[in-house]
Amino acid sequence: MLYGYNGKILHVDLTKGTWEIEEPGEYWYRTYVGGSALAAYYLLKHVKPGIDPLSPDNVLVFALSAVTGAPVSGFNRYSVAAKSPLTGTIGRTEAGGYFGPELKFAGFDAVVIYGKSEKPVYLWIHNGEAEIRDAASVWGKDNIQTLKMLEEELGDKRIRVASIGQAGENLARFACVQNDLEHYNGRTGMGAVMGSKNLKAVVARGKNRPQMADPDKVKEIRKVHNDKIKVHPPNVALNTVGTTGLIKGLNDTGILPTHNFRDGTFKGADKINADTYHSTIFESKGSCYSCSVKCKRRVSYQDEKYGLDVELGGAEFETLSALGSLCEIDNLPAIAKGNQLCNLYGLDTISAGCVVAFAMECFENGILTTEDTGGREINFGDADVMIWLIEEMAANRGIGKILSQGVKRAAEIIGKGADEYAFHIKGQELPLHDGRGKSGMAMGFALAPTGGEHVECPHDVAFTGNDVSKLSAVGLLDPVEPLKTDAAKARFFSIGQKVWQINNCYGICNFCSVPIHAMTFHQLVELIRAITGWDTSLFDILQVSERGTVMQRVFNNREGFGPKDDRVIRRWHEPLPDGPLKGQSIDRRAFREAIDLYYELSGWDKDGKPTRAKLIELNLGWLLDDEVA
Amino acid sequence: MLYGYNGKILHVDLTKGTWEIEEPGEYWYRTYVGGSALAAYYLLKHVKPGIDPLSPDNVLVFALSAVTGAPVSGFNRYSVAAKSPLTGTIGRTEAGGYFGPELKFAGFDAVVIYGKSEKPVYLWIHNGEAEIRDAASVWGKDNIQTLKMLEEELGDKRIRVASIGQAGENLARFACVQNDLEHYNGRTGMGAVMGSKNLKAVVARGKNRPQMADPDKVKEIRKVHNDKIKVHPPNVALNTVGTTGLIKGLNDTGILPTHNFRDGTFKGADKINADTYHSTIFESKGSCYSCSVKCKRRVSYQDEKYGLDVELGGAEFETLSALGSLCEIDNLPAIAKGNQLCNLYGLDTISAGCVVAFAMECFENGILTTEDTGGREINFGDADVMIWLIEEMAANRGIGKILSQGVKRAAEIIGKGADEYAFHIKGQELPLHDGRGKSGMAMGFALAPTGGEHVECPHDVAFTGNDVSKLSAVGLLDPVEPLKTDAAKARFFSIGQKVWQINNCYGICNFCSVPIHAMTFHQLVELIRAITGWDTSLFDILQVSERGTVMQRVFNNREGFGPKDDRVIRRWHEPLPDGPLKGQSIDRRAFREAIDLYYELSGWDKDGKPTRAKLIELNLGWLLDDEVA
Repeated sequence: MLYGYNGKILHVDLTKGTWEIEEPGEYWYRTYVGGSALAAYYLLKHVKPGIDPLSPDNVLVFALSAVTGAPVSGFNRYSVAAKSPLTGTIGRTEAGGYFGPELKFAGFDAVVIYGKSEKPVYLWIHNGEAEIRDAASVWGKDNIQTLKMLEEELGDKRIRVASIGQAGENLARFACVQNDLEHYNGRTGMGAVMGSKNLKAVVARGKNRPQMADPDKVKEIRKVHNDKIKVHPPNVALNTVGTTGLIKGLNDTGILPTHNFRDGTFKGADKINADTYHSTIFESKGSCYSCSVKCKRRVSYQDEKYGLDVELGGAEFETLSALGSLCEIDNLPAIAKGNQLCNLYGLDTISAGCVVAFAMECFENGILTTEDTGGREINFGDADVMIWLIEEMAANRGIGKILSQGVKRAAEIIGKGADEYAFHIKGQELPLHDGRGKSGMAMGFALAPTGGEHVECPHDVAFTGNDVSKLSAVGLLDPVEPLKTDAAKARFFSIGQKVWQINNCYGICNFCSVPIHAMTFHQLVELIRAITGWDTSLFDILQVSERGTVMQRVFNNREGFGPKDDRVIRRWHEPLPDGPLKGQSIDRRAFREAIDLYYELSGWDKDGKPTRAKLIELNLGWLLDDEVA
Repeated sequence: MLYGYNGKILHVDLTKGTWEIEEPGEYWYRTYVGGSALAAYYLLKHVKPGIDPLSPDNVLVFALSAVTGAPVSGFNRYSVAAKSPLTGTIGRTEAGGYFGPELKFAGFDAVVIYGKSEKPVYLWIHNGEAEIRDAASVWGKDNIQTLKMLEEELGDKRIRVASIGQAGENLARFACVQNDLEHYNGRTGMGAVMGSKNLKAVVARGKNRPQMADPDKVKEIRKVHNDKIKVHPPNVALNTVGTTGLIKGLNDTGILPTHNFRDGTFKGADKINADTYHSTIFESKGSCYSCSVKCKRRVSYQDEKYGLDVELGGAEFETLSALGSLCEIDNLPAIAKGNQLCNLYGLDTISAGCVVAFAMECFENGILTTEDTGGREINFGDADVMIWLIEEMAANRGIGKILSQGVKRAAEIIGKGADEYAFHIKGQELPLHDGRGKSGMAMGFALAPTGGEHVECPHDVAFTGNDVSKLSAVGLLDPVEPLKTDAAKARFFSIGQKVWQINNCYGICNFCSVPIHAMTFHQLVELIRAITGWDTSLFDILQVSERGTVMQRVFNNREGFGPKDDRVIRRWHEPLPDGPLKGQSIDRRAFREAIDLYYELSGWDKDGKPTRAKLIELNLGWLLDDEVA
């Protein structure tokens, strides 16, 4: 008996217009579980090395896990994965909301999509059946219009829709996938992959809740968990101000990314911080399926230029910093408007902000001029320019045609040394963190299989600020120094990454997960046991997590990525020019040594490739039989 | 608050006649926990490479753990460790009984003994105090006499005594340590180390039971555990016939060691099997502290020559095979008598039987003759000769002077090609298993840090015969083939060893442990959590286990042991000459490849040395600062 799952994977061939159902069995589910690991399995099986990510050869996976849709705070996330058109690495990005649980209730644990439809279509999944439907009417429409029209067409207000806007249709390389207008699989350009397949949306509706092994135990832990969330300081803070509190925290520490990652403090920080946010544009709290944290923000603002739509969600920390401090913009309604435009058209706000800041710094240095922009100046601090550039990128217009390719490709097209200001890792723009103040996070950025990404490992401060007894379950007895890059940091990261990647494999929200937030490792094990009925353990769970990381690494290795790509941006090796951490930088040699030690700690060879022994250890021996190993 | 422990380590300097108490703190306890890991810590700290194990430079450790003395079946074992005079590797050997818990209640978690007393002494440990007392009166006495005289001298019938007999005093290299005349730290010659220090006994008595974090939870799991023991087939079998059932089982399979490990079936097996045993010499069941398995046998037999003493315990499987099938002796009372003489004088029965079989095969091949033996023929099957040789070895007399050095040294002394018949690994004689029928067990023998030893990993059949869902907690989803030596077997062993070594670190009896017997991994974690109050996990527990293995490996590496020593005996590479598995052997090349893969799986280099990364991973970075790494 397979608890927690439907036991069914939907495979859709858009070229042929057909679908079929696979029933992989418990052994397979225990091995790959869900999310990033499950998705990596199909990508390794079906994506040939070297393919164009925007060609029909790419494969797109929507992946849930055993726990998706369990009635527990934070157990609602899902992964969307494919080869990334932004990076050429594995692309993968998680979102919360209600779509993941609904897809589970609609009868499937994952959807694997192959080929390309001749004409725009959407996928309608309901009660164990699938239908490939014509999307001509919604093609070219934004995400709000798409949602409304599909609700009307299907005659059901309770459908859940994962869709792309015009940016995805136009193949902007950092186009995202949205659900319910508030939740985003933001990163690595999965929206462009949908666009390239002429797939406008995946729509789910269903009533089949897979049975859990021990529903009473789940309820019992859920209660303990929710009670903790009410009092555990990080969860309380998330409930009160969402993630916006980080603006002040990071600025005070001196590591709020500012001026395209040059500076660590922003003089306009007060104007975009949590206090300002909640006293001006804040409308109400939003949530995800069955979650009591309620970290989401809804916003409203009456203004001709920067008017906000409560349906489209409010900017979170990453966006506040990307469209704000990074571009030195302190106009909060404008930032919130930029966020909503990204949401409407389906652009990743992190990459969008980074691209705008890149363009501004190019302009500042005469690399881009008014000749390139149709006469418009692109200066740091100019909110209107930021909004205009978002419109141009989504529409694939003017300078937007170049910038929508991401900073790496844009710099190549622009030339003239623009790459000096194109800050990315493996081709992906950076989330809004400054590694100079937290070297474990820097390692996470360098080693994320998807390129510059912040969900690879909890950052040093969060870990050290926590109760040591909680971390002892994974052998972390010593606090680490955020500013140090040494062997202890490599060890910390190696373990921390295994811990954090549990979330991406199991589809658990970081904010409800161990170690930063309310849950303990023991509770997590108990919950997964109660949901699945498996005699699992933290050892087993961490091995699944490591399996996911290793599979993604193998994917990237066969695409040609290696040690040279496991790096951070040059600016983090340069001293912070101002603020409390003035002068702080990451030593290049120490960082390289830490990365090399991480390889060793991971059972990877000097070329950053998982060894034969590591693949055997993780039951991935099948990867040895093909050209990968 | 440190639960489960006294928080005190007793350090005794026999040269100076002084003792002091160390209080290492929780961080240290969480890192080294107990048993083999805790002992290895002190040996790495205090035993200089290259020392003579029988010199005052050796250090002897009695080590308990957090769970020793918890009122749970099987939680009563302790380790005795030092550099082994038999092997030159780390020496270490576990025993059950009542001594471990009593030492805990006497106020200490471990005793570390340095130097050498000028004259015979014993150590009297009671209620948090220690006393080094004169042992002149008991020196030269056997284990029964010693126990009785110490009880009288201390005026307490409830003392618990770990003592050596004449064999230890005489420095027989496989002399053992006994407690309560029924329980033996049998292997690696720890009795000789005690003898070399003029230490006759360690005596414990105390009433201080360390507090457990959640006594009610312990009671609850204890009940579940004990209820399972009553019905779980392996435990039921152990209760009914002890380990003696293995004689028939292994003989039927064709891997009962016979004729000095040449054959796999013994024609006299029926005469020494469980049925015969229980219908002739069996008197009653014996037990260890708080254990409901009761696998111990007490025996009695009225006979002038082979009369048995109920106080001295009955032979278990290993002894039945060592003194029986291995020597082709089918006289059960004689075997039981040989066992009791070993117990009385303090000789390890496994090594004793192997040495006798070695001598017999040397005699069979004209390498030993009546000239060497004072006129006596040493033929396979001769029970009187077996008993005579035990007497000679314990007394260090005649041919016994040579044989008491173990087969490796004896063969060197005898010369004439005697080493062809000296079956040992790293100098230690083999427990009674034939690797040709279970290659995972063969890997365990090859890789045990103490040399030929069977408590390194549960053997293949036991693992495969078990419920897969139980093993899935450690990622073992696939059954393994007992006869195959391949990558899957190396993986199985690598994980299985980590699992099994939990027992030696935590002092848990194999018969009450995961995976063979009643307990599940989940219960084990729950129990350790309830006893210690630590937020531990199976990941953490397995890391402690691996830490123990790695520390022992480092100890051996610095003594010069390496890949050449990680091998099995030549006979296992030769076809079994008879029985159901006739023709079966272990392929040399496949075995070497499996060992090499195991190194890789373990994070050891090609020289079988734990890498710098592995030491850092396990928080053993301090080993990098000295000459070891």
